Amino acid sequence: MRQLDALKSPRFTQISTFGRLPICEKNEEIKAAFLGIPFDDAVTYRPGARFGPMGIRQGSRLLRPYNQFLDTYPFDKLNACDMGDINVIPGYIEDTMNAIQTSLYEIISSKNLVPFIAGGDHSITLPILRTLYKKFGKINIVHFDSHYDFWDSYWGKKYTHGTWLRRAIEEGLIKEAVQGGIRASTFSKEDLRDKERLGIRSFTIRDLKYNLDTVIREINSLSGPTHVSIDIDVVDPAFAPGTGTPEVGGLTSFEIIEIVRKLRFDKLVGFDVVEVAPPYDMSEITAMLAANIIYEGMSVLSLNL
Amino acid sequence: MRQLDALKSPRFTQISTFGRLPICEKNEEIKAAFLGIPFDDAVTYRPGARFGPMGIRQGSRLLRPYNQFLDTYPFDKLNACDMGDINVIPGYIEDTMNAIQTSLYEIISSKNLVPFIAGGDHSITLPILRTLYKKFGKINIVHFDSHYDFWDSYWGKKYTHGTWLRRAIEEGLIKEAVQGGIRASTFSKEDLRDKERLGIRSFTIRDLKYNLDTVIREINSLSGPTHVSIDIDVVDPAFAPGTGTPEVGGLTSFEIIEIVRKLRFDKLVGFDVVEVAPPYDMSEITAMLAANIIYEGMSVLSLNL
Amino acid sequence: MRQLDALKSPRFTQISTFGRLPICEKNEEIKAAFLGIPFDDAVTYRPGARFGPMGIRQGSRLLRPYNQFLDTYPFDKLNACDMGDINVIPGYIEDTMNAIQTSLYEIISSKNLVPFIAGGDHSITLPILRTLYKKFGKINIVHFDSHYDFWDSYWGKKYTHGTWLRRAIEEGLIKEAVQGGIRASTFSKEDLRDKERLGIRSFTIRDLKYNLDTVIREINSLSGPTHVSIDIDVVDPAFAPGTGTPEVGGLTSFEIIEIVRKLRFDKLVGFDVVEVAPPYDMSEITAMLAANIIYEGMSVLSLNL
Amino acid sequence: MRQLDALKSPRFTQISTFGRLPICEKNEEIKAAFLGIPFDDAVTYRPGARFGPMGIRQGSRLLRPYNQFLDTYPFDKLNACDMGDINVIPGYIEDTMNAIQTSLYEIISSKNLVPFIAGGDHSITLPILRTLYKKFGKINIVHFDSHYDFWDSYWGKKYTHGTWLRRAIEEGLIKEAVQGGIRASTFSKEDLRDKERLGIRSFTIRDLKYNLDTVIREINSLSGPTHVSIDIDVVDPAFAPGTGTPEVGGLTSFEIIEIVRKLRFDKLVGFDVVEVAPPYDMSEITAMLAANIIYEGMSVLSLNL
Amino acid sequence: MRQLDALKSPRFTQISTFGRLPICEKNEEIKAAFLGIPFDDAVTYRPGARFGPMGIRQGSRLLRPYNQFLDTYPFDKLNACDMGDINVIPGYIEDTMNAIQTSLYEIISSKNLVPFIAGGDHSITLPILRTLYKKFGKINIVHFDSHYDFWDSYWGKKYTHGTWLRRAIEEGLIKEAVQGGIRASTFSKEDLRDKERLGIRSFTIRDLKYNLDTVIREINSLSGPTHVSIDIDVVDPAFAPGTGTPEVGGLTSFEIIEIVRKLRFDKLVGFDVVEVAPPYDMSEITAMLAANIIYEGMSVLSLNL
Amino acid sequence: MRQLDALKSPRFTQISTFGRLPICEKNEEIKAAFLGIPFDDAVTYRPGARFGPMGIRQGSRLLRPYNQFLDTYPFDKLNACDMGDINVIPGYIEDTMNAIQTSLYEIISSKNLVPFIAGGDHSITLPILRTLYKKFGKINIVHFDSHYDFWDSYWGKKYTHGTWLRRAIEEGLIKEAVQGGIRASTFSKEDLRDKERLGIRSFTIRDLKYNLDTVIREINSLSGPTHVSIDIDVVDPAFAPGTGTPEVGGLTSFEIIEIVRKLRFDKLVGFDVVEVAPPYDMSEITAMLAANIIYEGMSVLSLNL
Repeated sequence: MRQLDALKSPRFTQISTFGRLPICEKNEEIKAAFLGIPFDDAVTYRPGARFGPMGIRQGSRLLRPYNQFLDTYPFDKLNACDMGDINVIPGYIEDTMNAIQTSLYEIISSKNLVPFIAGGDHSITLPILRTLYKKFGKINIVHFDSHYDFWDSYWGKKYTHGTWLRRAIEEGLIKEAVQGGIRASTFSKEDLRDKERLGIRSFTIRDLKYNLDTVIREINSLSGPTHVSIDIDVVDPAFAPGTGTPEVGGLTSFEIIEIVRKLRFDKLVGFDVVEVAPPYDMSEITAMLAANIIYEGMSVLSLNL
Repeated sequence: MRQLDALKSPRFTQISTFGRLPICEKNEEIKAAFLGIPFDDAVTYRPGARFGPMGIRQGSRLLRPYNQFLDTYPFDKLNACDMGDINVIPGYIEDTMNAIQTSLYEIISSKNLVPFIAGGDHSITLPILRTLYKKFGKINIVHFDSHYDFWDSYWGKKYTHGTWLRRAIEEGLIKEAVQGGIRASTFSKEDLRDKERLGIRSFTIRDLKYNLDTVIREINSLSGPTHVSIDIDVVDPAFAPGTGTPEVGGLTSFEIIEIVRKLRFDKLVGFDVVEVAPPYDMSEITAMLAANIIYEGMSVLSLNL
Repeated sequence: MRQLDALKSPRFTQISTFGRLPICEKNEEIKAAFLGIPFDDAVTYRPGARFGPMGIRQGSRLLRPYNQFLDTYPFDKLNACDMGDINVIPGYIEDTMNAIQTSLYEIISSKNLVPFIAGGDHSITLPILRTLYKKFGKINIVHFDSHYDFWDSYWGKKYTHGTWLRRAIEEGLIKEAVQGGIRASTFSKEDLRDKERLGIRSFTIRDLKYNLDTVIREINSLSGPTHVSIDIDVVDPAFAPGTGTPEVGGLTSFEIIEIVRKLRFDKLVGFDVVEVAPPYDMSEITAMLAANIIYEGMSVLSLNL
Repeated sequence: MRQLDALKSPRFTQISTFGRLPICEKNEEIKAAFLGIPFDDAVTYRPGARFGPMGIRQGSRLLRPYNQFLDTYPFDKLNACDMGDINVIPGYIEDTMNAIQTSLYEIISSKNLVPFIAGGDHSITLPILRTLYKKFGKINIVHFDSHYDFWDSYWGKKYTHGTWLRRAIEEGLIKEAVQGGIRASTFSKEDLRDKERLGIRSFTIRDLKYNLDTVIREINSLSGPTHVSIDIDVVDPAFAPGTGTPEVGGLTSFEIIEIVRKLRFDKLVGFDVVEVAPPYDMSEITAMLAANIIYEGMSVLSLNL
Repeated sequence: MRQLDALKSPRFTQISTFGRLPICEKNEEIKAAFLGIPFDDAVTYRPGARFGPMGIRQGSRLLRPYNQFLDTYPFDKLNACDMGDINVIPGYIEDTMNAIQTSLYEIISSKNLVPFIAGGDHSITLPILRTLYKKFGKINIVHFDSHYDFWDSYWGKKYTHGTWLRRAIEEGLIKEAVQGGIRASTFSKEDLRDKERLGIRSFTIRDLKYNLDTVIREINSLSGPTHVSIDIDVVDPAFAPGTGTPEVGGLTSFEIIEIVRKLRFDKLVGFDVVEVAPPYDMSEITAMLAANIIYEGMSVLSLNL
Repeated sequence: MRQLDALKSPRFTQISTFGRLPICEKNEEIKAAFLGIPFDDAVTYRPGARFGPMGIRQGSRLLRPYNQFLDTYPFDKLNACDMGDINVIPGYIEDTMNAIQTSLYEIISSKNLVPFIAGGDHSITLPILRTLYKKFGKINIVHFDSHYDFWDSYWGKKYTHGTWLRRAIEEGLIKEAVQGGIRASTFSKEDLRDKERLGIRSFTIRDLKYNLDTVIREINSLSGPTHVSIDIDVVDPAFAPGTGTPEVGGLTSFEIIEIVRKLRFDKLVGFDVVEVAPPYDMSEITAMLAANIIYEGMSVLSLNL
């Protein structure tokens, strides 16, 4: 068993790694690694997601080896481990993006591992996509969020947690983009036209609530290298209060878990859960949810093995 | 655009007004105004709703101009603004009711504006209804709550947050009354008979959960001047912990938002959201929900323009 | 009326007893009593359930005499009262189990009362079952939880909050066992086989969400003396954050309340709500939910009178 | 021993009474009783002190029988017990004052017991003084607070938590008045003259910090029936965050405890600790402090026996 | 009276401005204005100070017109008002510095007003000093903090909340620098030599605790234009938990208030309180303390009028 | 430098070890190691100290290499590292004591390292002392606490967090015992005689507040192997709310830090900080204080090198 054995070492003991997994060793063959990118200076409202990786590690202490709903042992099958965090440069978005690209490419270029990344705010998905593109070429993006995240700029700046998707499309990184869970009020009716122009298949929260099967089918028919990016604010603030720009009227935790469990990919190459901001969390419920989402994501990946 | 532009002035900057709207100017033509009535001495359990208007202003900083679900720009269409609060008289229920009546009548008598009122506890709906009656005659009341609120008295007193509806009916202010979301345990089986006697069409939480369409049809068939009063405790305490007499087993935030979006009125004359008690809130989720309910209410009103 | 009258004595006044009921008197004929067992040293993650009875008493102050959904006055019909707590021995699981058995047998042996017990962690259900068995013989157990709770041992110890069900079956206390709400990741695929071997009819959270009627039918067809044990973590942490080993993706408060309301027993002999840990609660929402679950449980019992 | 024995019954068990003392019995001879007056509608800022008695009971669970600093067993010597709360009338200040006077007079008129009262906001001290006056004639008042509390009126109303001292003096209830700890900014320089006119010997926080002996000497030289009234906000919000109108720059908990320990009276007839507002407390530190202040007050009283 | 009258309009009503002062009008003659600079991307640990101005406004609602300790009416004498916030550019430190310089120079260049600035993290003091320098030439800096804040760079970047003082000295903005309260562990023994080299008179927390008079004398002997910069973390986290890089063993709230009250300047030209991070605050105690520090600072300024 | 360099790797990044130190390697020569013992089932009131090591690691992220008050680089001089936690057996006090003794002896027997131990509740000090005795013979104990901790038993049990000191003396482990900070109310006047009989030199909080030099002299004159045990509740709950049996009227954080800095030992062999209970902490202030106490303790030890 990869994890510290909770039947011998109580779950509240020992240094916090994701899922109580070992710290990654240089020469091990691993198929999935937990990686933190604790950057939150591109958030437009509440900061705090820099403590996301820390919180998610803490919130992952109750995870156990076997997932009965998908009949898999994700950690064991993937030889999963915790890679620590990428060193970001607080207050410098563009330098941080470069740092992420350098570090992440180093991690994935020569190995066959899928990074399960804990943000950090959503701006980190842009350098993740750039890095994946560098290795795999055009990438499908599957994006759950309450916001479109394809605005052009905020306060005259191109790089924020609300503009990464437009940038990724403009930079030609994206093959197909499917997003779901959208519900926030928006700046203008133009936003709806923008999503057409940008070629994003966008589903609102109503689509997820009332027509989930359609959305899942749409996602599961994607082919080629695919990255999943889950902004925790797609979930309702009752279930995920610890986030930077919460929007009421979202998914329940049961719904997001069920959604992740239903995803199937021919080639999953990356997975991130972003915008977990522990200073706004309550009894670690957001962190625990994020940890479980990653666990289910790893479980889905392990089905292909 | 009415609001401070979040793309230039970050949402966490500047003085807190509802929706980052301007403070109302005397001679402007406005169709809807946010108004606080921070009175909470008529609550029977937890006080704190006096901080409701403050909290809801804070919780409204993420609202954006365009509501894609109703295809409307509520703030712009309504020329909405923030009127500040009515000065209440803490510890004196009846004097406060008079103060509310005087101030509110001054606001609505000569203008065509719909007040969107943030309580305060539910006792404020009685002076609101009296004032609306003074201008419009008999008023329909659409009431969402987990409690009947038609008790006769508490500790020998006629005016509390649990008696306003009976008072309003006794005083002849009400044309038709429809209420939904009821689920709290009650004092006696007599309560069920009382609602018949008082002529209230009352729907429980089960009706809202299992037969929403019927309830909406009932409400949307009302004609004439109508006031909507939403006790935030109609929502489950997981989504709205910041309230004075929470009752488990309530609506989700998605459900209350969907309900408000489905309401249509030929003549909406008032709208209140009461019992938001920030000292019991968590990461502002209750305040944000209340702010969004008001936003959806304004959106519905703007459809008639 | 059994309770302090909230129309005379405001709900936030006077010493905290469950439902503002009287403290039990020696010679009264009572059919149901609230009883606290504040022991939490058998928890495998977060302690705090020792404050459960205290918290649930506090969270029960808003309960009112009449339950309109079941058309009953549970407190009056059952002559309900508050028996205080059993004195536990912190840090000594097995001694505490003995203390519980002694005290509880004293309470129920000569009387016809059903104890409604507030934990404490789930380990207390074993001594409860032993005591019920001593009086009634084999007992049906109806168990709601996100965990199986039939593990063999933790850190080499047989008695923890995760092993009580296996112990109870091994000790021959159980007639039939039905459990629902299971969703946590588990230690191994063996766990699934164990439940067969142990003869437990086990329903996952998906069964409760998608096929509730089947589950209820299964439970309601049990005959003979039955104990209900509700681990509050069967409910989602958004609705019940105050617990020791929370698992995301659980029931809503509406769902658990509806479930309890639908239960019918020919002979209910015990009822516990365990794992309520107030230090992790928020605005008392978990405590209030637990209080309401007990209220509904008493209501169901009162239907048989 | 009067208290439940913590060496047998762990401190977190059983129903919450002050100091785990018995509930007062009608015919017992008691010299001191804990009494709650949970009224908070006269507060000018944050409500919540209605939960003060509840919170202080909870915060008193760690008190033990022997006070080594004063070499006394206060509970045993005073035969102390918990009298429950006075039923107040929320939202009605003047009716509540009457209710307090009636109930309190009933309690003290025929007995020789000193009430140790937990508020509630500071307005309750006026009806307490009226009642003491009715029994004893003019009363000395020893008053610790960060505010003068002798304003004439707020929003045109004579009865608030900031006017009780002026009312008491005007009504002729007061023999001598000494107050200490004053530090809040005030409405006008007139306030300083008012305290001369009203004959109050007033000491600021600087006097308490730099010249405590003088202040104590002043207080200890009072003769005749004396009431002590401690507004918890005399203590710094770091030590007592749970209060309605906190003022920074106050006493430490060590200082207030030492002050109370140094007080000596020839005839202590009443003692209150007010403005403890648990919704704003943190880990019960304010409630624990209030409980300890009452414990030290009882200890001082017991020295005269 | 400048403020909303709390005797007519309860303190919890109306839109939040500092001290319930009016919003500044263009052509008014004002001598002091409250100004927010909600930037926190240069913090090295916990963000959240972007909500500082918001929090401090809220925490200032209890301030009253007269300061009896300095015998002054600061708001009235200074014709004080609230100028709102400077629009910062989240995630872009250097652009924000420019924005601050432009906006602040506009505010102070043509007027004789002293800005009382609420941060934001400590990086904002550099653009403040640059702006003051532009108007007044070299500036004395009086700096209270638990950290030296004269490090050269963090992660290769020159502009952070820990480097502003070195930058200001290097840029030639500073006449004399006195700092007090230092206590954090540091990077190296070199730090002590650096303060010599940079010409900073630096006092540790021990100096403030044991030899305050010397420190005050040192400060009060400065002549010429002086800016005061108070990092709230000079205060102990018990009194000021809401901050980004707390250090235990600090000042009490009484001490910081007394220190500010003792300061005298021949020419105070600026005053800032930085690093107030409301997400980490508790019951607003940090925000209230910051509001009181500003109030005392305004009081000291008003003594010169 | 031993620690991760905060000037390169921001303090909120990477896996949490104490002081961001490396995890101990088998064959390294280390003079001090951080070690967690997360056991809390022997607490008599609030549990939660099992999360103490976790919390203290988190709270230690701001520690820097150089301590200017003692002119030392503790981590570098001691080659300090983080040893992880001892695996305890929740719910089994005596088994856990054995586990601690086995693990700790293994750690210290063959090496010359001083363990800096983070509890856990105070019961862990007994097995620590037994282990130290096994290696060094009789040990001096320097004990800071608000409680005597020499009671004979609780609920008939010899091993709790309030009895360890008596057990250690009875077992002959102790050479000399000095304790300071005592202030809690006690069970009986006998307690005072017990401390004589047991040969403990006991100082109250008043001694620490008014005569610190005497106490320090007493401690610093001890000779031979000495263990320091600091119950965080010696500090006031305002500074250390996160603890199990808080007592008001304690030390400030400045005082405890100054005390530790003044200690000098000829042979320090162990050091523990116990009773840090993060669930009751606020913004990590207790955890940060505990981390700083350990840092100062390591600094004192490093002076001997």
